[in-house]
Amino acid sequence: MKYLKYYTGNGSETRWAILEGETVRPLKGLPYEAPETDGTSLPFAGVRLACPADATKIVAVGRNYYDHVMEFHNEVPKEPMLFFKPTTALLDPDSTLRKPDFTDRFDYEGEIAVVFKKKAKDVAKEEALDYILGYTCLNDITARDIQLADDQWTRGKGLDGSAPVGPFVADGLAHDGIGIKTYLNGKLRQDGNTSMMMWDIPSVIAFVTRYFTMLPGDILTCGTPVNVGPMVPGDVVEVVGEGIGTLRTTIC
Amino acid sequence: MKYLKYYTGNGSETRWAILEGETVRPLKGLPYEAPETDGTSLPFAGVRLACPADATKIVAVGRNYYDHVMEFHNEVPKEPMLFFKPTTALLDPDSTLRKPDFTDRFDYEGEIAVVFKKKAKDVAKEEALDYILGYTCLNDITARDIQLADDQWTRGKGLDGSAPVGPFVADGLAHDGIGIKTYLNGKLRQDGNTSMMMWDIPSVIAFVTRYFTMLPGDILTCGTPVNVGPMVPGDVVEVVGEGIGTLRTTIC
Repeated sequence: MKYLKYYTGNGSETRWAILEGETVRPLKGLPYEAPETDGTSLPFAGVRLACPADATKIVAVGRNYYDHVMEFHNEVPKEPMLFFKPTTALLDPDSTLRKPDFTDRFDYEGEIAVVFKKKAKDVAKEEALDYILGYTCLNDITARDIQLADDQWTRGKGLDGSAPVGPFVADGLAHDGIGIKTYLNGKLRQDGNTSMMMWDIPSVIAFVTRYFTMLPGDILTCGTPVNVGPMVPGDVVEVVGEGIGTLRTTIC
Repeated sequence: MKYLKYYTGNGSETRWAILEGETVRPLKGLPYEAPETDGTSLPFAGVRLACPADATKIVAVGRNYYDHVMEFHNEVPKEPMLFFKPTTALLDPDSTLRKPDFTDRFDYEGEIAVVFKKKAKDVAKEEALDYILGYTCLNDITARDIQLADDQWTRGKGLDGSAPVGPFVADGLAHDGIGIKTYLNGKLRQDGNTSMMMWDIPSVIAFVTRYFTMLPGDILTCGTPVNVGPMVPGDVVEVVGEGIGTLRTTIC
């Protein structure tokens, strides 16, 4: 099943739906509890997608792929390393994002993220997958020069629009075998798989919910594989999650 | 003027109001734009206070009082040092907070915070005060052992309930002369004033909004003075903002 959120009417409101082939089937309410379609449908072509989450927070895992840890000559962390991105970082699929003038190194980081469907605190690893609606793509856009200059990653990782999310939330995938590729202007730059993560998705959910209550619609993004790199105005970056879809962002 | 938010009826909903002496005058809507009382009133005694903000994010400034920087032997930062607390950290005034078992050093940090009343991005220092509803108290509760063990302050500063806020939002104060005191079980522990901050409130607003869009109800907390310290179950901690009020939290 693929969930999506799209803009209705004049674009001021959004609605959740299920995608079946090329058909969008709107839901009566939110997808988190017993989602039910309302009987109507519309063609997917022409639908404008919104970020498929209702996040009150975004928790991110840094340094979860060994090769990415090595590319910055960092130590392998003993536990998952966490940071927050604010909700003002959320960006819809197929959006344009302006590179701020104050950074000279504006990097893509393609990631697989999960969207929570129910309140989650102190979740056991064995039950972790029961708490998620499914899997999506997130581009953890990073002002690398600022991140490396600051002790805290707040500015480097928290800029407006620095978290494109989508295009869909897919359930039914094997959590430990989701391919994740990032393309810059059509050229493959990152090629990973959640099987390569040092802490798998259930372990990360258990760890994070030990410290923070995750709410329905909250996002946990699980880290980026090796080969992050810079984007400049005019670039098109695509994060492709296997079984999920293509999350496209244009830099201006 | 003092704004407050309180629980109505069975406690499932909240309402904004203005406090006049011992009288609560409910507002027709939110306080952010042209707040208007609805003509009714109720006595303050017996009202149960909610956190007086509708935050989508909490941005915090670390190391903004010189003496506090020195107590941890840190370097004086060249720019304001920022971190996020998630909205699951928000805690109502007069609440009880459980010290988690996984920390042995659960510290209070009394702070003056501002609540935004309109969308703020790239705000000039000279206009910064036009963007805030007023001033409140925030206790930036910190699992110090975890903060010091981790590179990022995410876990140490982001725990559930680790941001008591309130009791009121006061406007009309001189931003650079607000006294801030913290009492532990009635004994004075921290005694500062916003006049002692290395970056004053307008400077911090200008800096933060260069990087993040602040939304109505968002919170910016401005740092803690010297003499932070630990709390244990049974302790009562009070953060007293001059011209604001007393924010009380009980640890269990």
